[in-house]
Formats: sequence, C-alpha cells, structure tokens
Amino acid sequence: MSLGDLWQALLPVGRHPATGGYHRFSWTEEDAACRNWFARAAGQRDMRVEQDRNSNLWAWWDTAEPDSAPAIATGSHLDSVPAGGAFDGPLGVASGFAAIDLLREGGFTPARPIAVAAFAEEEGGRFGVACLGSRLLTGAIDPQAARELRDRSGVTLARAMAEAGCDPSVIGPDDAVLGRLAAYVELHIEQGRALADLGAPVAVGERIWPHGRWRLDFTGAADHAGTAGLAGRRDPMLAFAHTVLAARESAGRAGGLATIGRVVAEPGAVNAVSARISAWLDARAPDTDTLTGLVEGVLSGARDAASSNRVGCAAHRESLSEAVVFDPVLRDRVSRALSGAGIAAPALPTGAGHDAGILAARLPTAMLFVRNPTGVSHSPAEHASMADCEAGVVALAAVLADLAGGTGQGGTAGQ
Amino acid sequence: MSLGDLWQALLPVGRHPATGGYHRFSWTEEDAACRNWFARAAGQRDMRVEQDRNSNLWAWWDTAEPDSAPAIATGSHLDSVPAGGAFDGPLGVASGFAAIDLLREGGFTPARPIAVAAFAEEEGGRFGVACLGSRLLTGAIDPQAARELRDRSGVTLARAMAEAGCDPSVIGPDDAVLGRLAAYVELHIEQGRALADLGAPVAVGERIWPHGRWRLDFTGAADHAGTAGLAGRRDPMLAFAHTVLAARESAGRAGGLATIGRVVAEPGAVNAVSARISAWLDARAPDTDTLTGLVEGVLSGARDAASSNRVGCAAHRESLSEAVVFDPVLRDRVSRALSGAGIAAPALPTGAGHDAGILAARLPTAMLFVRNPTGVSHSPAEHASMADCEAGVVALAAVLADLAGGTGQGGTAGQ
Repeated sequence: MSLGDLWQALLPVGRHPATGGYHRFSWTEEDAACRNWFARAAGQRDMRVEQDRNSNLWAWWDTAEPDSAPAIATGSHLDSVPAGGAFDGPLGVASGFAAIDLLREGGFTPARPIAVAAFAEEEGGRFGVACLGSRLLTGAIDPQAARELRDRSGVTLARAMAEAGCDPSVIGPDDAVLGRLAAYVELHIEQGRALADLGAPVAVGERIWPHGRWRLDFTGAADHAGTAGLAGRRDPMLAFAHTVLAARESAGRAGGLATIGRVVAEPGAVNAVSARISAWLDARAPDTDTLTGLVEGVLSGARDAASSNRVGCAAHRESLSEAVVFDPVLRDRVSRALSGAGIAAPALPTGAGHDAGILAARLPTAMLFVRNPTGVSHSPAEHASMADCEAGVVALAAVLADLAGGTGQGGTAGQ
Repeated sequence: MSLGDLWQALLPVGRHPATGGYHRFSWTEEDAACRNWFARAAGQRDMRVEQDRNSNLWAWWDTAEPDSAPAIATGSHLDSVPAGGAFDGPLGVASGFAAIDLLREGGFTPARPIAVAAFAEEEGGRFGVACLGSRLLTGAIDPQAARELRDRSGVTLARAMAEAGCDPSVIGPDDAVLGRLAAYVELHIEQGRALADLGAPVAVGERIWPHGRWRLDFTGAADHAGTAGLAGRRDPMLAFAHTVLAARESAGRAGGLATIGRVVAEPGAVNAVSARISAWLDARAPDTDTLTGLVEGVLSGARDAASSNRVGCAAHRESLSEAVVFDPVLRDRVSRALSGAGIAAPALPTGAGHDAGILAARLPTAMLFVRNPTGVSHSPAEHASMADCEAGVVALAAVLADLAGGTGQGGTAGQ
C-alpha cells in the first residue's frame, strides 16, 4: 500500500465540506475515525497496535527476538487545530507506515523493533495544552491538572476521555512505555518556507524555539452600549485592542513571534459594553531571554492599557516550553544516514512545538521536515507535493534502517 | 397582588446562580417560563391573553362594550441581553399589571380597553436584530429575511420558533393587531444617570437617538503562530484592534457612542493566525448626520487598518433606526396627566432603542423612565429601588387612566 493510498483513506475524516479545513479534535468521533484508520494501517502491515494509558497509539514491528535492544519510534499526531490543514501531523504518521513498506519491499529486517506512534492532542485544539499526550507520558504535566482541563463547551478532559472509552484515572508518566524506546524520529511538514528557498525537499530539525501561552483577562464593567457615556465606561475591549498592537510591536522589536488568535468577549452582546475580555497570547523567540523580554513587553503594554481604561488585567502563563536543541549525536547520525543514501538535507530550526520536543527530555529525538512551498500551515491552504512527501518517506526509511540496524537493502551493519 | 409579588415570581427565571446575570433568550425554555409568568399574571387579573403572529404577548382588560374606541397599550419585553439585569424590560411589563391593580383598587373602569404587552426578542440577544417582535409587527423587517436569521449555534429563527410551538410561516406585518391600538406607553428603567442627577424618580421620554448595528468582517490568511514570519502575515486581528480604537476615537469626536462588544475570531486557535475576525459595531448619536459621520470615521479607520495589514474588510449595516421624537401631542398629554397627579417628571432623551420607538412609525407612543441610581444597564448590577418602581407604577396608572378615559378614582372625564 502506497503513501498515496494511506493518504486518500484518511483525507475525508473531519474535513469541512465548504472550507476544506480539518476539525479533528481529540476524543471526538473524528478522532475515533482517525484511530480506526491507524489501526487498519497497522493491521494491513501485521503490526501490533497498543494504546497507552495516555491515549497515544503505537503500532509495533516487532523483532523475532523478544529481548532485542530498545526500539526506534517514528510518527507524529492525527489531531488538528480548528480548520487546520491535512498535513500537519498525519503526514508523519502515514510516512512512518509508508517507510516500513519501503523497508520491507527492500527485504529489510530490523535488529530493533520499529514503532509508529500517533500522539494524542498534540495541537491542544480541544483542551488548550499543546503536546498533551507526550506531556502526560513524560510527566511534563500534572495528571490531576490535566483531568480538570476543559474544552470550550466546559467538558473536562476526564469526561471527554471517559466518553471515548478511555480511563482518565490512569493518565500520567509511563516509564514502561518510555523504557522501550531508544530514539524517536518525527517527520513533519515544514511550517515555513525555508526549504522552498533552499530548493531541497527534506531537512533535518536543528532546534525548537522556546515558546509559551499566556492567558490575559481584562475585567471591566458591563453596561448599555446606548446609554453609558464614553468617559464613564470601563471597557476591557479597548485594553485588549491596545494589547494586540503591543504584542505585534514587541515581537517585531525582539525578532520573535507573538500571536493573539483566540479572544472571548463576555457577555458578547452587540449592544453591551463588555464585562470581560479573555485573550490568549502565543509567543516564541530564538532563545529564552529574548522570549522573556518579548512577553514582558506585551504584558507591560497590556497593564498600561488596562490602567488607562480603568479595567483589571491578569496574566496567567498556561504553558512554557524551553528551547529544545535536538540530541547532537542522534542528529549527526540522521544527517550521515541521509548523506549515505544520497539525500542532501539542510539543518533547520523551527518556531513550532512538537512531541519530539517534549520527548527530548527523556530520550534522544530528531525531526525531518518536508518542503511546504507556501509556508502556510494551520490552514486548509497548507500543502506539500506528493513527490516531496515520497522523498520524505525515502529519507525516513533510510534513517529508520540506520537506527534500527538489521539486514537487507536499506539496512546497515547494525550499531 | 403587588408589584413586589409579581417581581419575586419572575426573578429566578434565567438567572445565573453565580453571576446573578440574566439569560432569557427568545424561544428558549427561559422564554417559555417568562411567558408562563405573563399568562399567570394576566389570569390572576381576569385578563384575556393573546399571542400574536409575531410571538408578542397581549393581556387584555376589555371594556363591557365590544365596539369601544381603540385600546391604550402599555408593556415592554421579557427577554434579556446575555448576562443582563433584572429590570430592563420586565419592569415595564410588571408595572403594567401593577398599574391595572392600582386602577381597579381605585374603582376605575376604563372607557377604552387597556392592554399589557410583552414584545418578543427586543434585545436581539439571540438573533442579533433588536426589537424584532415590534419590527415584524409593523413591517420594519422582511419576514423572509427574519426567518433566515441565525443564532450563535446556527439555528434559524424559523426553526427556533417552530421548536417553541410557534408558526414561523405567518410572521410579518399585522394591521389587525395595530388597528386595535390608539397609543402605546412603555415604562422602562432608565439606562443612564440623568434622573439620579435631577433627583426625580420618573421621567417622560423625549426622543430616541438614531442608532444602528454594523457587522465588520476582516479576512486574512490563517497560518501557524510558531512559524509564519510577522512580515508575511495577513492577520485580521491587527486590523480589528485598530478598528476598536478608531471607533472610540470617532465616537468621542462626534459626541456620540460607539461600542464593539461582540467579536468572533476564526479558527480561534491559540496557535494560529486568524483567518477571519467578525465584529459588530453599535453606534448612536444625537442626530442622523452626526451618526453618519461617526460611522464613516470608524469604517474609514477599519479600511485603512485592513489595507496596511493586507487583509480584506467588508462592512454590512444590519440595522438602522432613525431618530424617534415621540409624538408631541401624546407626550404633552402624558406630562399633563402626571402634573395633574402631582408627579413632577422631567423630559429625557435616550440612546437606547425600544419597541416604543419602532411602534412610533404606526401609532402615537410615549415612554416613562424610572430612576437607575448607578446608570448601569445590560449588567447584573442594573438596579432600581422598589420605592422608585412603585412611583413608576403610580405614574403609569395616572397616564393609563387619563388616556383610557373612564370612570372612578384616577379616571378623567374621558376624551
């Protein structure tokens, strides 16, 4: 079964018929359909499927010897942001299965098990915490705090999991799963245009910028839009507007990124001055000090605007991911494996978070990026050519063969 | 039954237990509970209840002669903005019933029928068009356009009405209902602090400022918050933020009011640059020319900001209510009736729209305002003292007695 066949089978799931945007939120019907696709793809390859305690999926290509060395894992995630693109996440999972097909077609037999993984709630599209499945697995988030996370309808993670047939009481760090892994290599569509500018289809991940999310609550006083005089108003929308502009200005000054893409106005009536505006700041920068300065610039602008509009302003850091420099030894080995296969792959940093960045705290991880001609991501317009995706599969197969050792075409002499 | 008893019976309906804010949206369970309250209040007074084709409620104190002169109506509405106050609307309906109690206690028998009305969807809190019930009744909105209005969940007005047991196919202008009315007098809590400053519990409405609603759509390009460079973004949130500030500035310059209290960001993900921001502008001014200039100032600011951020900007006027100067003959008669009853009631203009303003296109209408010490409205903090509310009932009873003619205490010699 080709990458194209795998791809076509997944393509309709959660796709909005009018916009083409994907809505694949964790522990929903669409998520279940994605998981069924994963199970079918594994079954077609005689791979054993496990769902770990944190709803992450694993498909195993076991070795003949039960006591072989720890496994090499690849994969990505199947969930999407609201109205997201088709490639962000699923390309890495589908490419994992396709790379295994390629290795088997070459007669390769691995010395270590190879696993294809799909991590849960990577986008945080439903519960607001990115890389939730890998965070839970590695202990990067408190399980009780996670259980109490709520989606936009007020449904807790615990309830969403239970309704999807998963037991929320057992989520949390899982060393038994991690102990079986020697390394994790995640393939992902590039979310910028660097490869297009470099004229290469595939890159090796170099580092992930530090990034975080802050929730900003501006608290004013609800009033009637038709009768409350301007001077007497305490309108949090004004403080919010100043903050949006302060974020852009601070990010530009720092050479980083700041985005406010989610805002909730309460009560949200056309004819009422708002009582409260809640907004979320996503901020990223090349290093931690720059990020700290960038965010302080935004918060300082928010506080000034709140003060001059006589509204309250509270900021709460919801998540912070430190910079991740991928394991240099693994990265060099990945680069050498690609060179050995005749693939020229430049090294690229990225501002996007990935499960590979979370897992890096516990095991060597690496990333491969596939060219995205427009650089657009988190949008239905996100796209990679099938030729570039196939090149990604070839590259991933070469890396897996090198890392898993073993015999046959594409394999090396082992470690 | 006193005003206090009527009030206490209605108070729990649709009240949020934590915030105290009211959520009484049209054609919902809460709306049905309000309508039951209306029917009980009418039944306790042997008043005949009718629901007209546009879901407006009418309770009739009929005269003995079936061919008496057209009726005097009073009332207001029972729906609320999201998280609204208890008084805006219900005070006028409850005061109508309480005024009838007062007239009957005085042995008054009217020469014309007296009706208490509750108009549907006055706030536009569910379907976005203020005074929807009176607009439909008077032909101020096309019935087919109204049927296609959607609430935030995408439910059409037609479906919401049908699910509430109302027939949406018969909505629209209803001259049979209007032909039975000689005048409409609406009592309402004041939504500013003028009466508090003047030291009077009751005022007579003088005029309603012209006001309208505009929908603004800013269309950019969704992208990944972690990888899309600032320079390449087409982020509609930036254009929106500039527009919020332009609205405040333009309103201040014009001596009017501008409010943006509802905003929707799509896709609404924390880690995505927005594809689209929709926002609603509520604008009001003392006269039409000033309002036109104010809105042009906002739209010009919006277009400039959209252009410099390379996003699209479309503005659509959803409603416009011209200035209403209440019928001078009726207004003078109301003032004289109050003077005759020993009540000093100043004349007040208002920036708030009311069903009395819509009905003014078809029959003489007048308004009474009851003091609101803080001026806060469209908020759980909205308040009027029970003593001032009782003063409002006394004033309304004097006005109804004068207009309806008849015999007994509080009555006059008729027309």
